[in-house]
Amino acid sequence: MNTKRTNIENVPKAVVNRLSLYLRELQQLMRAEKMTISSTNLGRRLGLTAAQVRKDFAYFGQFGYPGIGYRCEELAAEIRQILGTDRVWPVALIGCGNLGQALLGYKGFKKQGFRIVAAFDVDRSIVGTEIESLKVHHLDELLSMSQALEIRLAILAVPSSAANSVVEKLVEAGILGILNFAPVTLNLPKSVSIVGVDLAMELEQLAFAVVKQGERQ
Amino acid sequence: MNTKRTNIENVPKAVVNRLSLYLRELQQLMRAEKMTISSTNLGRRLGLTAAQVRKDFAYFGQFGYPGIGYRCEELAAEIRQILGTDRVWPVALIGCGNLGQALLGYKGFKKQGFRIVAAFDVDRSIVGTEIESLKVHHLDELLSMSQALEIRLAILAVPSSAANSVVEKLVEAGILGILNFAPVTLNLPKSVSIVGVDLAMELEQLAFAVVKQGERQ
Repeated sequence: MNTKRTNIENVPKAVVNRLSLYLRELQQLMRAEKMTISSTNLGRRLGLTAAQVRKDFAYFGQFGYPGIGYRCEELAAEIRQILGTDRVWPVALIGCGNLGQALLGYKGFKKQGFRIVAAFDVDRSIVGTEIESLKVHHLDELLSMSQALEIRLAILAVPSSAANSVVEKLVEAGILGILNFAPVTLNLPKSVSIVGVDLAMELEQLAFAVVKQGERQ
Repeated sequence: MNTKRTNIENVPKAVVNRLSLYLRELQQLMRAEKMTISSTNLGRRLGLTAAQVRKDFAYFGQFGYPGIGYRCEELAAEIRQILGTDRVWPVALIGCGNLGQALLGYKGFKKQGFRIVAAFDVDRSIVGTEIESLKVHHLDELLSMSQALEIRLAILAVPSSAANSVVEKLVEAGILGILNFAPVTLNLPKSVSIVGVDLAMELEQLAFAVVKQGERQ
């Protein structure tokens, strides 16, 4: 096994996205106490050809064993290392309205190595209160708290109208990655990464399933 | 062009998932006034081989033209038809707490053909109020309203502890697809489809981007 990261610059976003999908499959296999899986079978679970699976991993190194395939636990650990989720990431939540409060209660982040360690708002009626055992700070404290807690990731859950002015403060505070729930284009320096959340995609999958179900009957 | 849907039963979920990704790329190409795209270039945008792209579409028919590739508008329309989003889907929102209220304000659903037409809760302090111009009904009204409004999809945004008892009512009301935000396993008849939301996946993509950024410096 050999992790090369020389060409990491050229990895398409969608390949990185599939790393998350592979990881979820491996986590499921491990829960079922499966030790190994071939590229063919791993691909089959995700509707990918074995060649596509191997090509995806080839960006990062050589992880399979001839005649064995991938060792689930080992490959999962490799993916976590590639994604950077082999450590716990402290995350800042910006915006503690309905969405922000819902996200504070969301259990899925912690399970994959993300921990919301600080929450911010500008609304004086929210600042100073506690939500899910976390004190809400004023956004002006973001810079000092990000430095103290070494926060590099932020979840942006503010109204669209406020998003761009807030983003400037995130950049100043040294935030390098933003998960954006506001459906607006953000003006960001190249050094800051952004991922937008597209919840409609999941509904499309459901629509398909329901259409399919209708045809079956 | 020829849409065959005979083998639709055997389409892996991940292929259907990629239909959404292809659709987003095509929508972007159309905004940029691109008329056609080859399977190679469409694949490149998503880090997929041309063979994988063609294999994905082959489940549903033959959409490309020799020497031309795919016609963007046409392929987008085909995908919408396959997914079932060539029509507007009325959606029920179950649970009008923080998450539910945030989802009622979410603009991304409408853009892709989903419309939350009815909201439900059991909390007497919320039932009867209006959120985002939508009246909140008691869950007991779900059956009659689902029939009247022909609702087949529901977004489940209730606390985990309530999820399974609510699901029974959804099934009774004829809901066929559930977008589940509660991080629990739901007991569902086979005729009802479910998609869970995994927000951590997006954070993993950000973690990778930040790690990559760090290595570049």
